[in-house]
Amino acid sequence: MQWYVVASLLTVLTSSQGILTTLSQTDGTYKYDYATVPFLAEVFKLLVSGILLRREFLRLPPPMMTKEWKTIRLYPIPSIIYLIHNNVQFATLTYVDTSTYQIMGNLKIVTTAVLFRLFLRRKLSNLQWMAIFLLAIGTTTSQVKGCGEASCDSLFSAPIPGYMLGVLSACLSALAGIYTEFLLKKNSDSLYWQNVQLYMFGAIFNLTRLIMDDFRGGFEKGPWWQRLFNGYNIITWMVVLNLGSTGLLVSWLMKYADNIVKVYSTSMAMLLTMILSIILFNFKPTLQLFLGIIVCIMSVHMYFAPPNMLVDLPVPVRAVPEDVVKVSVDRKTDF
Amino acid sequence: MQWYVVASLLTVLTSSQGILTTLSQTDGTYKYDYATVPFLAEVFKLLVSGILLRREFLRLPPPMMTKEWKTIRLYPIPSIIYLIHNNVQFATLTYVDTSTYQIMGNLKIVTTAVLFRLFLRRKLSNLQWMAIFLLAIGTTTSQVKGCGEASCDSLFSAPIPGYMLGVLSACLSALAGIYTEFLLKKNSDSLYWQNVQLYMFGAIFNLTRLIMDDFRGGFEKGPWWQRLFNGYNIITWMVVLNLGSTGLLVSWLMKYADNIVKVYSTSMAMLLTMILSIILFNFKPTLQLFLGIIVCIMSVHMYFAPPNMLVDLPVPVRAVPEDVVKVSVDRKTDF
Repeated sequence: MQWYVVASLLTVLTSSQGILTTLSQTDGTYKYDYATVPFLAEVFKLLVSGILLRREFLRLPPPMMTKEWKTIRLYPIPSIIYLIHNNVQFATLTYVDTSTYQIMGNLKIVTTAVLFRLFLRRKLSNLQWMAIFLLAIGTTTSQVKGCGEASCDSLFSAPIPGYMLGVLSACLSALAGIYTEFLLKKNSDSLYWQNVQLYMFGAIFNLTRLIMDDFRGGFEKGPWWQRLFNGYNIITWMVVLNLGSTGLLVSWLMKYADNIVKVYSTSMAMLLTMILSIILFNFKPTLQLFLGIIVCIMSVHMYFAPPNMLVDLPVPVRAVPEDVVKVSVDRKTDF
Repeated sequence: MQWYVVASLLTVLTSSQGILTTLSQTDGTYKYDYATVPFLAEVFKLLVSGILLRREFLRLPPPMMTKEWKTIRLYPIPSIIYLIHNNVQFATLTYVDTSTYQIMGNLKIVTTAVLFRLFLRRKLSNLQWMAIFLLAIGTTTSQVKGCGEASCDSLFSAPIPGYMLGVLSACLSALAGIYTEFLLKKNSDSLYWQNVQLYMFGAIFNLTRLIMDDFRGGFEKGPWWQRLFNGYNIITWMVVLNLGSTGLLVSWLMKYADNIVKVYSTSMAMLLTMILSIILFNFKPTLQLFLGIIVCIMSVHMYFAPPNMLVDLPVPVRAVPEDVVKVSVDRKTDF
């Protein structure tokens, strides 16, 4: 499968996530406990990966599987980073309002590229760096408060620790992605085996969170297994399946493409959600949404188009000390 | 002189124009007739160009001067286009409000590039086209109404003829610039001689406008020569000198650089005016201004930076039919 097919599918599914979540309300409120959704999604991903891994066993050659403790012990790390990230996110929201938090969330695009360069040592051209900044600017532009909307000065008036935690949050979120890419590309193990390990720990950490919620809430709403399917409707199940599927696609992209592709997919999904909200929920289209979308589309073109499509390359001449030289040339120029 | 020095100077002077005009008010109103300012600016430009042309005569070789009617008759054309443009502008403003008109004004950036390509047959790379669109998006972003500001839905609610006239206005404004560039680059005449012709007609057309205003107004405020210096203060004179100087710089850029450079200069000036307004008049900085400025700065870099600074060029290999060839190479590669 081509990476851009997977990336497009991820965009569509991610953008439906917000829409489905809104639609899963009954009479304007959530009748179910939203914390149970990520746990079930992890279980779904674990099941799917397990089935696919089993199917690989029926074929030859059997899937590559590293079973050393030295490797397995790395798989809980993404879950641990996400756990820390969730707590930082919670702390940030005590300082800043949700719309400022949302705006700061676009920083993740830039931090992902920085860690991609630093940890994975992947080089980006000057133009690709500009494309990444433009993507962050484009998504931010689309979120600029329109006139008439409430809480005008919130963005520049939050306390300093709020901004610092926002930056930390963006770094942690990027780190989790970059670490997962490192893990999945580390060896040529079967993706399904790698997924089984990732989601096993994912399910355990999510379960721990549910249990901790039980203790914190003093079992007022009953133990987690009673909350599990309570108030679920057909759309809630679609939210679970959707979240699980996007997770599987992200994992595929991390293995066979990279974090930057994932960042582009989810950023475009955010814009698609805004367009769908205009159509489905009668949201008002704004000039800034329109401008943001154009900037993001240009960013995609700048990042992914081959250089010779973007600039007029000079007639290629090899720089050689003096005069006349004999050069062996190849028809294929590898741009 | 280097073009970027002139372009930077133009940016600074153009951005002071708006500030000076605001400061030239006495007790919050204009005590003078603003229509007299462009006329005096034309006279100032005519005088300066005349003096500089005279100085050229004292040196050898004497300045090149084409005096055929065939050439001279082309010089009123920019003034005629501006006259039509002014009337279209007036008509547009009967359909749309000033802020929508201001937003549509950014179209001029794109129309200038289109006419630059079509009439002057100058090629732009794919990336340069993107840079130009980004410049227009950046300036538009900076003008997006902040929350709390009045007249929210004006932008998407103007009648269709308003938008059509806005597009026409952007085309005419671009045409005047492109035509002037064509005229000044047409031959290697002295720029000062070309200026004298341009500003002679400029002064005549502006005077005609003043006289027409007299007749329209029924000479209520007296004939034009009485209105000329009436209510002028020191800052009004600075407005005149500033407008005249920017005109001379634009003319220099048209001859020795091009319309795109001019468009970048004046767009950056618009952003600089907004920054200066924050400092001088306590305007509130907005997120969209910040985003717009970054987009415009990136656009400058994309347009003017040499391609090899933007993309990682492949090791250059000449594509040649077969095998081994003899190539004569030059050390200097002209990017």
